[in-house]
Amino acid sequence: MSKARAKKIKLLIFDVDGVLTDGKLYFLPAQSSSASKDLSAPPSSTRVEVKGFHAHDGAGISMARLAGIKTGLITKRVSETVAARARDLRMEHVHQGIHNKWACMEQILKQEGLKPSQAAFVGDDVIDLPVMRRCGLAIAVANARAEVKKEAHYVTRHAGGDGAARDAIEFILKGQGIWKKIVDEYTAERK
Amino acid sequence: MSKARAKKIKLLIFDVDGVLTDGKLYFLPAQSSSASKDLSAPPSSTRVEVKGFHAHDGAGISMARLAGIKTGLITKRVSETVAARARDLRMEHVHQGIHNKWACMEQILKQEGLKPSQAAFVGDDVIDLPVMRRCGLAIAVANARAEVKKEAHYVTRHAGGDGAARDAIEFILKGQGIWKKIVDEYTAERK
Amino acid sequence: MSKARAKKIKLLIFDVDGVLTDGKLYFLPAQSSSASKDLSAPPSSTRVEVKGFHAHDGAGISMARLAGIKTGLITKRVSETVAARARDLRMEHVHQGIHNKWACMEQILKQEGLKPSQAAFVGDDVIDLPVMRRCGLAIAVANARAEVKKEAHYVTRHAGGDGAARDAIEFILKGQGIWKKIVDEYTAERK
Amino acid sequence: MSKARAKKIKLLIFDVDGVLTDGKLYFLPAQSSSASKDLSAPPSSTRVEVKGFHAHDGAGISMARLAGIKTGLITKRVSETVAARARDLRMEHVHQGIHNKWACMEQILKQEGLKPSQAAFVGDDVIDLPVMRRCGLAIAVANARAEVKKEAHYVTRHAGGDGAARDAIEFILKGQGIWKKIVDEYTAERK
Repeated sequence: MSKARAKKIKLLIFDVDGVLTDGKLYFLPAQSSSASKDLSAPPSSTRVEVKGFHAHDGAGISMARLAGIKTGLITKRVSETVAARARDLRMEHVHQGIHNKWACMEQILKQEGLKPSQAAFVGDDVIDLPVMRRCGLAIAVANARAEVKKEAHYVTRHAGGDGAARDAIEFILKGQGIWKKIVDEYTAERK
Repeated sequence: MSKARAKKIKLLIFDVDGVLTDGKLYFLPAQSSSASKDLSAPPSSTRVEVKGFHAHDGAGISMARLAGIKTGLITKRVSETVAARARDLRMEHVHQGIHNKWACMEQILKQEGLKPSQAAFVGDDVIDLPVMRRCGLAIAVANARAEVKKEAHYVTRHAGGDGAARDAIEFILKGQGIWKKIVDEYTAERK
Repeated sequence: MSKARAKKIKLLIFDVDGVLTDGKLYFLPAQSSSASKDLSAPPSSTRVEVKGFHAHDGAGISMARLAGIKTGLITKRVSETVAARARDLRMEHVHQGIHNKWACMEQILKQEGLKPSQAAFVGDDVIDLPVMRRCGLAIAVANARAEVKKEAHYVTRHAGGDGAARDAIEFILKGQGIWKKIVDEYTAERK
Repeated sequence: MSKARAKKIKLLIFDVDGVLTDGKLYFLPAQSSSASKDLSAPPSSTRVEVKGFHAHDGAGISMARLAGIKTGLITKRVSETVAARARDLRMEHVHQGIHNKWACMEQILKQEGLKPSQAAFVGDDVIDLPVMRRCGLAIAVANARAEVKKEAHYVTRHAGGDGAARDAIEFILKGQGIWKKIVDEYTAERK
């Protein structure tokens, strides 16, 4: 049962596009000072990738931290936007440019001294399946491709970029029986 | 009854992300002149946070002003986009970077010489619950998290960033029996 | 009947926010060369307003032109984005910063030598009602506020920014019995 | 039957706006170095067109490549964003600024030594009908205008910019009986 799986989770890793965002990629020509300094860079380096994160997910990540759960992201793409958002959210494990997500997860588990059964992965596409299959809790977002939903222990109610990560966190904290306690702590902190 | 509550409202305060916007946060590298002058600033200060406001809400805020209702916003995040939009809308009370929203609301009430029963707060997440519980009228947007909807006196039909603030204003002005009068005045003004 | 009204239309005027767009307003700090030259300008002039137009509407405007219908826009807000999009679409009548839309429409009618019964207006909010009531054909978009839909002769199937203007044009050209002919001409032109 | 048509496909060409994107066009003032160098250029050349592509489509294009299917795009509009995205996706045939899409497709077919029955075209608007009618497999996206859906052999489940291209690729690869094999190869590659 998926609630029993949620109970053991100490580490929660997200894919980015389609999970922390709605999967849309917007490209802008870059005018950052670093870009203008390096005019010999290839065209791709003068482009900015813009994507939309959700405020509810941000609050969720804060609550996961209060619950002692480590968070992170593993994504195939590379963008400064994602690095910046991860810093904002104070995520512990940020890995971009990764094709083999399970190999990356194995390193994180080793570093944290955790077993696969203590890790959850939230994904939306087939490239996430190998790591989802090996984690204790496999979560698919509402907008995940059909194959991915079929193999998930839990499918979020909201789509990626619209609160899916928050749903995942609520599911885990409710499974651990600490959701209400954490909400109280979160809304009260720094009073 | 929530209409009785609406009748007393003289002050209407909004959360921002998920309420005046759909909750999506887009990040761009900043190239504003102020940023380029301060090259020693940390990376986070050279980022621009972009979010989408809705035209129907803007018209609604103008109508609230015609009805003599003071408006404002209290939000945990800080962005220039929000400050600019608030100036556009000529809101009276603009408070960013606030975690304890009720403490902030108390100061506004004191400044305006109003009682909590004369204030409405529109929110979407658990962090808004403490202030919602203490205001005369608690409004949740259609896309609010479930806990927040459950405690609201009124849930808007439209989602945040898609006209939720307008719904809130219509609900209050209709409760006060002056909606049609204000619409006529608004569509006629500056003829 | 609304089809009889459509038959007479020679002029089709759109509101912008919520009609040619989904009503969302995104603000960015401006870095255009003109902005940097005028550092003494007020803060509002160094902001760029970004909004999303739809490709289907663009094709529709081209087809309206082939049908000999003049097009234009009347909007309360002012932005360079709108001016640029109107140039792209080769609209004949572009009026920004207008509160009294009917007075503006009267001038357009005079200039074109047309009667109000020959004009259609597509709107989404109460500020559009005075001009909608006086035009031969009043069209509301799917996402229009309830009061506006109630007074419209036709409500589009798509929302603003998602093809509503295209729906309006198809409705008129079908009412005039020339839709198929215009589609053939449009898909064949410049072969 | 449309599956029989899918079996023969060796070339898959997409329209862009409304197919690889949701059809929304955002305009920004350009500050690219090329723009600033050419101050005498007309205003339209100093604008950047921004549109949103989807991560699921990107994965789909990679899988089409693994399956030996050539991909490309033919679009009436011209933007640097589209050129950049096509480079990212390593598409073989990128044609912007094209009104007569069939004439362009004919050249691609000649270049590739393929017959029209081996080509699929994915479109959303009437301008795509002439090429769709002549290709072996005509695919319309979920958000295509009604006339276009009516003439398609297959209509995608997702809308343009939300995974429609991925749906098209899955439909073809499933018709060819190689979908599962390609997914395995894609998720395993570069292990």
